[in-house]
Amino acid sequence: MAVKKFVYFFGGGKAEGKGTMKDVLGGKGAGLAEMTNIGLPVPAGFTITAEVCDFFYKNGRKYPKGFTEEVRKHLARLERLTGKRFGDSLDPLLVSVRSGAARSMPGMMDTILNLGLNDRSVEGLSAKTSNRRFALDAYRRFIMMYGTTAMGVSKDKFNAEFRDIKERKTRTRLGKRAGIILDTEVNDDELAELIVHLKAVYKEHTGKDFPQDPLEQLWGSIDAVIGSWMAEKAVTYRDLEKINGLLGTAVNVVQMVFGNRGESSGTGVCFTREPNTGADTFYGDLLMNAQGEDVVAGIRTPIHLSDLDKHMPAIYRELCKVRGRLEKHYRDMQDIEFTIEDGKLYILQCRTGKRSPLAAFKIAVDMVKEKLITTQEAIGRITDKDIEGLFYPVIDPNIPREELKRHLFATGIAAVPGAASGAIVFTARDAEAWTAQGKHVILLRKETSPEDVGGMHAARGILTATGGKTSHAAVVARGWGKCCIVGCEDLAIDYEAKTVQVGDTVLPEGSLITINGSTGEVFTTELPLNKPELPEAYSTLMKWVDAERTLKVRTNVDTPYDAENAIRLGAEGIGLCRTEHMFFDTDVRRTAIQRMIVADDEETRRRALDEILPFQRQDFTGIFRAMDGKPVTIRLIDPPLHEFVPHGEAEQKELAGKLDLPFHVVKRKIDRLHEANPMLGHRGSRLCITYPEILDMQVRAIMEAACGCRKQGVKVFPEIMLPLIIDAKELAILADRTRVVAATVIKETGQKVNYLVGTMIEVPRAALLADEIAGVAEFFSFGTNDLTQMTLGMSRDDAGRFLPDYVDERRSGILKSDPFQSLDQDGVGLLIKMAIDKGRRVKKDLKVGICGEHGGDPASVVFCHLNAFDYVSCSPFRVPIARLAAAQASLKWPRKARKTKRTARRKTAKKK
Amino acid sequence: MAVKKFVYFFGGGKAEGKGTMKDVLGGKGAGLAEMTNIGLPVPAGFTITAEVCDFFYKNGRKYPKGFTEEVRKHLARLERLTGKRFGDSLDPLLVSVRSGAARSMPGMMDTILNLGLNDRSVEGLSAKTSNRRFALDAYRRFIMMYGTTAMGVSKDKFNAEFRDIKERKTRTRLGKRAGIILDTEVNDDELAELIVHLKAVYKEHTGKDFPQDPLEQLWGSIDAVIGSWMAEKAVTYRDLEKINGLLGTAVNVVQMVFGNRGESSGTGVCFTREPNTGADTFYGDLLMNAQGEDVVAGIRTPIHLSDLDKHMPAIYRELCKVRGRLEKHYRDMQDIEFTIEDGKLYILQCRTGKRSPLAAFKIAVDMVKEKLITTQEAIGRITDKDIEGLFYPVIDPNIPREELKRHLFATGIAAVPGAASGAIVFTARDAEAWTAQGKHVILLRKETSPEDVGGMHAARGILTATGGKTSHAAVVARGWGKCCIVGCEDLAIDYEAKTVQVGDTVLPEGSLITINGSTGEVFTTELPLNKPELPEAYSTLMKWVDAERTLKVRTNVDTPYDAENAIRLGAEGIGLCRTEHMFFDTDVRRTAIQRMIVADDEETRRRALDEILPFQRQDFTGIFRAMDGKPVTIRLIDPPLHEFVPHGEAEQKELAGKLDLPFHVVKRKIDRLHEANPMLGHRGSRLCITYPEILDMQVRAIMEAACGCRKQGVKVFPEIMLPLIIDAKELAILADRTRVVAATVIKETGQKVNYLVGTMIEVPRAALLADEIAGVAEFFSFGTNDLTQMTLGMSRDDAGRFLPDYVDERRSGILKSDPFQSLDQDGVGLLIKMAIDKGRRVKKDLKVGICGEHGGDPASVVFCHLNAFDYVSCSPFRVPIARLAAAQASLKWPRKARKTKRTARRKTAKKK
Repeated sequence: MAVKKFVYFFGGGKAEGKGTMKDVLGGKGAGLAEMTNIGLPVPAGFTITAEVCDFFYKNGRKYPKGFTEEVRKHLARLERLTGKRFGDSLDPLLVSVRSGAARSMPGMMDTILNLGLNDRSVEGLSAKTSNRRFALDAYRRFIMMYGTTAMGVSKDKFNAEFRDIKERKTRTRLGKRAGIILDTEVNDDELAELIVHLKAVYKEHTGKDFPQDPLEQLWGSIDAVIGSWMAEKAVTYRDLEKINGLLGTAVNVVQMVFGNRGESSGTGVCFTREPNTGADTFYGDLLMNAQGEDVVAGIRTPIHLSDLDKHMPAIYRELCKVRGRLEKHYRDMQDIEFTIEDGKLYILQCRTGKRSPLAAFKIAVDMVKEKLITTQEAIGRITDKDIEGLFYPVIDPNIPREELKRHLFATGIAAVPGAASGAIVFTARDAEAWTAQGKHVILLRKETSPEDVGGMHAARGILTATGGKTSHAAVVARGWGKCCIVGCEDLAIDYEAKTVQVGDTVLPEGSLITINGSTGEVFTTELPLNKPELPEAYSTLMKWVDAERTLKVRTNVDTPYDAENAIRLGAEGIGLCRTEHMFFDTDVRRTAIQRMIVADDEETRRRALDEILPFQRQDFTGIFRAMDGKPVTIRLIDPPLHEFVPHGEAEQKELAGKLDLPFHVVKRKIDRLHEANPMLGHRGSRLCITYPEILDMQVRAIMEAACGCRKQGVKVFPEIMLPLIIDAKELAILADRTRVVAATVIKETGQKVNYLVGTMIEVPRAALLADEIAGVAEFFSFGTNDLTQMTLGMSRDDAGRFLPDYVDERRSGILKSDPFQSLDQDGVGLLIKMAIDKGRRVKKDLKVGICGEHGGDPASVVFCHLNAFDYVSCSPFRVPIARLAAAQASLKWPRKARKTKRTARRKTAKKK
Repeated sequence: MAVKKFVYFFGGGKAEGKGTMKDVLGGKGAGLAEMTNIGLPVPAGFTITAEVCDFFYKNGRKYPKGFTEEVRKHLARLERLTGKRFGDSLDPLLVSVRSGAARSMPGMMDTILNLGLNDRSVEGLSAKTSNRRFALDAYRRFIMMYGTTAMGVSKDKFNAEFRDIKERKTRTRLGKRAGIILDTEVNDDELAELIVHLKAVYKEHTGKDFPQDPLEQLWGSIDAVIGSWMAEKAVTYRDLEKINGLLGTAVNVVQMVFGNRGESSGTGVCFTREPNTGADTFYGDLLMNAQGEDVVAGIRTPIHLSDLDKHMPAIYRELCKVRGRLEKHYRDMQDIEFTIEDGKLYILQCRTGKRSPLAAFKIAVDMVKEKLITTQEAIGRITDKDIEGLFYPVIDPNIPREELKRHLFATGIAAVPGAASGAIVFTARDAEAWTAQGKHVILLRKETSPEDVGGMHAARGILTATGGKTSHAAVVARGWGKCCIVGCEDLAIDYEAKTVQVGDTVLPEGSLITINGSTGEVFTTELPLNKPELPEAYSTLMKWVDAERTLKVRTNVDTPYDAENAIRLGAEGIGLCRTEHMFFDTDVRRTAIQRMIVADDEETRRRALDEILPFQRQDFTGIFRAMDGKPVTIRLIDPPLHEFVPHGEAEQKELAGKLDLPFHVVKRKIDRLHEANPMLGHRGSRLCITYPEILDMQVRAIMEAACGCRKQGVKVFPEIMLPLIIDAKELAILADRTRVVAATVIKETGQKVNYLVGTMIEVPRAALLADEIAGVAEFFSFGTNDLTQMTLGMSRDDAGRFLPDYVDERRSGILKSDPFQSLDQDGVGLLIKMAIDKGRRVKKDLKVGICGEHGGDPASVVFCHLNAFDYVSCSPFRVPIARLAAAQASLKWPRKARKTKRTARRKTAKKK
């Protein structure tokens, strides 16, 4: 076998490695090589490959043969190139040692600077720079860094020595600023004394003298970097971030350059474009006469980059050239670290710059205009977080973290992003009443139910003590893009006293709070919020997105208002219109549905349904108008009936009065509706099997609305969807009945309306028997919320208590992610693939969509793209995210848009 | 195409058809042909095939070409053979017309007798028999039968005329018996007058004169029989009984023979063996001078068959010969209808005789001894109902139906067969207390929970207002073979008042009731019960059964007592030992588990678990001893924790006192355990992921018991089973932990115990990923209760409200049967097949069993046999039924017993 190359050199305008070798050289090493190659002024040095680290751990913690030789050779080469020698007493070579894996990763060893200094070479540095204080300070820093980061000596011990020196100085000094001694005020002698003390600390804690041999220092540092790859912190981080398959860390040994060698030295960080707005301006800060760690420490206020033009115009011009070069080379906004040593510019590092969502859009669109990148690349540069960032209000980012901490009340599960503030109320009724009085409120409940929807809509934000990300509260709030935190289990809510307590803090009704739906934090005060704004670049980019994707994106909405909003957000149809929310809209509707539920005979039920029909027809008319020409999938009644009736005695008595029935009759009827596991109970199409008159009314309302719209010239494409189907025969019975009612209405009105009848696939049995069901259904819509619950045997309302144990990599990592957030592709995904395969084997052009919460999750959208779905459907505020994800999937895995043959199939449907 | 044969003749010792032609000739027709062929004295006649009926309905209700011709030809042949002529005024040919499909089927047309009589031929019959009254009575009967059954005239109208005549006679008659006039007391003139009236009624209702042409009568009857095939009653019956694929009904036209032609005539029914005990004695009743319908009407008391020997010894001897012939021919006990006409014996019908469970076993075993049938055939003759009938007490069958009706209180779902009576109590505590005082009680609850198990055990029977056949009450009761009715929704239970009400009847605590778990009926009195007894034939037959089957049968039990009982019933191991029931056994155990649940930290939990360990170890020791040498599958804790804690305030306060904790702490902790859908909540192995210390304790208890037994020379084969697994990684984490604990105990005790670690497959995801899971599991046990619930999205506790709509053929017939009773082979079965296939692809010798309720359902046992399960496991009282079903499946679809390679795999297991 050929001898492997373990060390890559760079310097003198040439590098052995290159930018694409991240896996071997790490991100940092690859960047240094690349910058060297394109002619940037990078200090010379060499990179030890990650393969060495890999070998080390695979071979009982031993280095590969020939490796030490190779390091020594490259060190000699560095000495030759720089003309300095390691440990030299006249002009010593000093280097920095840094870790650097293929992905940026906290938890590994920090940088060690100034390596190569010892009692002898420090004098050489002093002589060479004519700056004894600088040299001693460099030595002092090196001892501390090497001691702490490479040898694990407590930082506090070193700092204590430094503090002692400074305190002694304070005691002896006159003047007003007693007690505040800057590091820079410590003089040469004191530094020399400090070095003695630091070495003593070092010896005390390591049992050895501080190494005077620079080679020993170097190997100590290399060992430490490679050792830190398996440090607990680093392993945990990789587990948490699910970083797998890396070889290990590389080690970068680079010649030192000093930004603290006087007033013609300095160090700074800059961005090639403005990272907050994305404006095409050069943006950055620098500190003159300082080292990088001083910038981080924030001791002095840095000057703005533009001021460099005044101080050192040549350097500034050179930096501007670097900016241009890097943007052209990397074709993205860069974050650059640089140092000026004695009037000479060095580039130490460059990487893709972090940016705000606003900037992300602007930079991507601008770079397309500048022909730096293609529209496809621009699409790839945007993330779902960028879109979220544009749409939701956020807590003013200028509020210091400490202040936030002071107000922190509790932390729950971040269910819907954004922030909201207002007065807390404990009932949906109060939320409506207070809002009507012009107050902003946050609705705080143990959990919410469909009865609370009015109050939830009125509130600015919703906070619940129980439930997970797909609990009722979360799902409803998400539909409106309304900030929501759920499962905040620390909250002890007392509905009677109208208080909420955490620890000793008790908040009464009306207390002002702020909730951050992006983090799950609840604050006991009203914090200032920044409102969202949509930049022009957003519309431009989203047009490119839409041109790219093959997967359609629909939305889940229940009202004309939400439908209009969703269209503005790019929805191409409704994938799920839940009809039951309509029953809660007004008292009249609510009473009618309750009268139906309490009824003992079909006749009374039919009369109550007749009352509801005009309302439903009106709702559907509004929705069809709003969606003019776009398909609308309407799901017939789904929740168990007990969700529609009150459970408190007072409300039941009120209902009995309204319905003119004895209280005990109403109570008995409602009690009988109780279910042990309502999720698996009498709901969905099961209700229509038991009470077909409900189906009759709903289908009539849909078709009367459709025919009415059609008469007025509004195009309509209703798709009637039967939920919770488990069998082809069940579907056939209901689909036939649906078609009979629809045909009657079409005949009555004389309007020809094409419609489809299909089903949700949300019970495992339906997926297993999808071939038989496809024989009856004209479309499938995967209801992945329920399908996930049933396939995993996990109630989303209850999973909060144990799901973290399953998802958390440190505890078990059994599941890759929360299956209610991102589709469980291994399990549920397998079932879905099987169902599509079986379904399309029977009906080749079967229309397939998804209408669970997953329709707005990027990873799940990719799954849908890969498995030939026709569309995904999600809540309006997730529509842009789904569009983006669909486009990105299309770019990565091109596929043709499926022909839906809508008209053809509609005609076939009618013939049946 | 060859002309089809539509009519089959029989008579004169020869028949065109034979016994195997049931599909074409119907059961009755095939029987008549067969009996004719073997030389029995059968009246002559012909059978119109079911193919005619089939053709009729497939061709717009027209008969096939040539059919009428063929009937006429066969009629002429009958005339020739009998020497009588249709409608003859001297010696007319009279026939009966009967329907008869391949399967016996109520709802079709009744028999028409005496066809061929008219105003003229009645005189011929009168002359020929020298019995005018007989002839007129025959004509009167024919008009009524033809009018009602063929022409749909109301029976009441005819009867009213008969009543008028009789009443008039009463008014004019002297004597004491006024008002009671027997049919036979009506004289010739009155009969002649009655015939005039009956014909008038006929004309009034049909608009036509009563047909005088015998051919018209015949065709009217044939039309009516064929028409009755599609009568609503018949169609409904076929739907209900799921009778499919029949061609239609045949029509039997047979020469009349009369049992009412004087004292040397008679008619009767007999069985070739005693149908109650199975004794090899000739058994039957007959009425002299009577027609079949008189026997049915029960007007006179019949005489016993043995008396015939005195009356007509020759006929008796002939009948005994027939008995011998038929048993030899059909090789089963027969039920024979016969008529004696003027001293000549005719056999009218024979079919396999219905028999009691006791008789079924005795006859089957006796016939093997007599070398009439093989042991395999004997096995095929026994049904699951026969076994059930042997094991459960039943209400004295001699109590008249009317009396039962008077006491009927309500009807629920028959969950566990048998009957029980006792005083009603409303709490488990009362059940225990009253039983301790020597009373028999029936526990009446809205529903039961694990807390009630003690009281359930004490009660004689269990009755609940809610729940289905697999609700908690039903499952627990079934385990004990204890009579149980569930889902008796009419019961309005008032726990406070301790009363139960249905309609206006209110029963207070202590009222005596009887429940019939085989029918679901509840009676408001104490009815006498017959205790079960096991005959010798049972043991003999079950030995044959065990020799035949390849599927093993285990049992689901939780206590040493039940284990011993199950072994007596033939169990070959334990397939499911639920460990949580052990937690409720005593107050000390209950408190310990509750202390664990309320604990906030692992330390407290571990201490509480330490208290439980000795109890669990003791239980397992008992079970291992009872099962000496047989495998024992132990499932670790499964139910959600809230099932272990009290939910009433008083009980919670009591618990707080016991645990020395503030009430609000206990209450809060318990409140937090509340789940929206506990079936899909924090239970099963999820508990061990969150609280691994529970697993540690349980595995330690199992292994300490196992090693302890082993030390005392008891063979032990523990199979540790992890419930509700959804992922291979989840199982791996828990299986590894299990093996670590087990290895520790083995090391501590120095006893080598082989054990397996496997999983229940009860969540759809586990079935879908069975290949991955098989990589970790040493066995699969399908938990079909939960798998059914999740696959169908149906909570068994709630399904009672809508499942009837799904199973009832008249309402929808979506499901073939209750999926919690008999495995849903289409849906859940598909998933199981897939899982076994995937599992065995990875691990060829993977042991596979089933431990859901379905393990005791015969159809599901057949499914398990066909899909290469190693064993089924069911409640002890279902074990004999499962053994039988397994043997019957083996006979029908032979397969080799799978090699389990237990020892081999156990060794592999240990190495891991």
